[in-house]
Amino acid sequence: MDPLEIASALARTPGTVRALTAGLPAEWLRRNDGPGTWSAYDVVGHLLNAEATNWQPRTRMILQHGSDRAFEPFDREAMLRWKPESINGILDRFQAAREAVVEELLALHLSPADLDRRGLHPEIGEVTLGELWATWVAHDLTHIGQIAEVLARRYRHAVGPWRVFMPALDRTADAE
Amino acid sequence: MDPLEIASALARTPGTVRALTAGLPAEWLRRNDGPGTWSAYDVVGHLLNAEATNWQPRTRMILQHGSDRAFEPFDREAMLRWKPESINGILDRFQAAREAVVEELLALHLSPADLDRRGLHPEIGEVTLGELWATWVAHDLTHIGQIAEVLARRYRHAVGPWRVFMPALDRTADAE
Repeated sequence: MDPLEIASALARTPGTVRALTAGLPAEWLRRNDGPGTWSAYDVVGHLLNAEATNWQPRTRMILQHGSDRAFEPFDREAMLRWKPESINGILDRFQAAREAVVEELLALHLSPADLDRRGLHPEIGEVTLGELWATWVAHDLTHIGQIAEVLARRYRHAVGPWRVFMPALDRTADAE
Repeated sequence: MDPLEIASALARTPGTVRALTAGLPAEWLRRNDGPGTWSAYDVVGHLLNAEATNWQPRTRMILQHGSDRAFEPFDREAMLRWKPESINGILDRFQAAREAVVEELLALHLSPADLDRRGLHPEIGEVTLGELWATWVAHDLTHIGQIAEVLARRYRHAVGPWRVFMPALDRTADAE
């Protein structure tokens, strides 16, 4: 793993999320799997929120304070309390935020050795910058998977007898 | 559900799959979760293969023969025996195949009532055209989710202690 590879992976995500969700009917985007679960719309909001309140501030905290100061806790459900907005608006803001942060990462000119720099997570304790960034990429991808699956489950009943072949239609999109 | 909505959903898939996979390093694309599981590369091949040997021929079979003739069985793992090819080559062929079949669907000018037309599946018995098409859309989406997740699992270890928050990193991409 090196910083350029991470930056390159992060830069891809807004395009993928846009391809999956832009222009879909609102009732599809807003469909969830029941109480306590997230719709595709919610997940895109979660990604935008994580950008501003999780990945970037935690990266800065490690670089400025190491493990002397713990990260702020991350509110994973903040987006559920936002004023409703068009998906395109959220996608645009996510793309702009992601582009800015990738530019910031690249401007740091970090070496692979910098990935060992340490920070302090309020729940799981000491972590490295490399672990934070690997989690960032993996979090993007697992949430892309979550968006695709919750959209698929719109057709849970419409697939009729094929449902027996499609276990993903019987999962639920737990908040992760 | 109506035929135009299905066609619109199907038309989106090549762009999403391309955004997720084009240009990724081969070792990432080819990474799988162990014996009997599929890499992202394998899943894209599976989508291309399904286009030519599953969805389109089964649609035609329903329209031409109703439930008088059973569908050919679908070989879900045919792509594992293909000659290796660049991901861009597979993506281009998938996009071309999908564009052609969406055009064919639209040219049929089917009404919502046509979605009740019947066909015969060799394992699960009688099905409708609407069920076939809903399965097609859901199958695209669950496999997009599968691609995103198997890519995420490249970082299964690199995320360090965050792994406890990311159950998707401990699933495996079973052939579905």
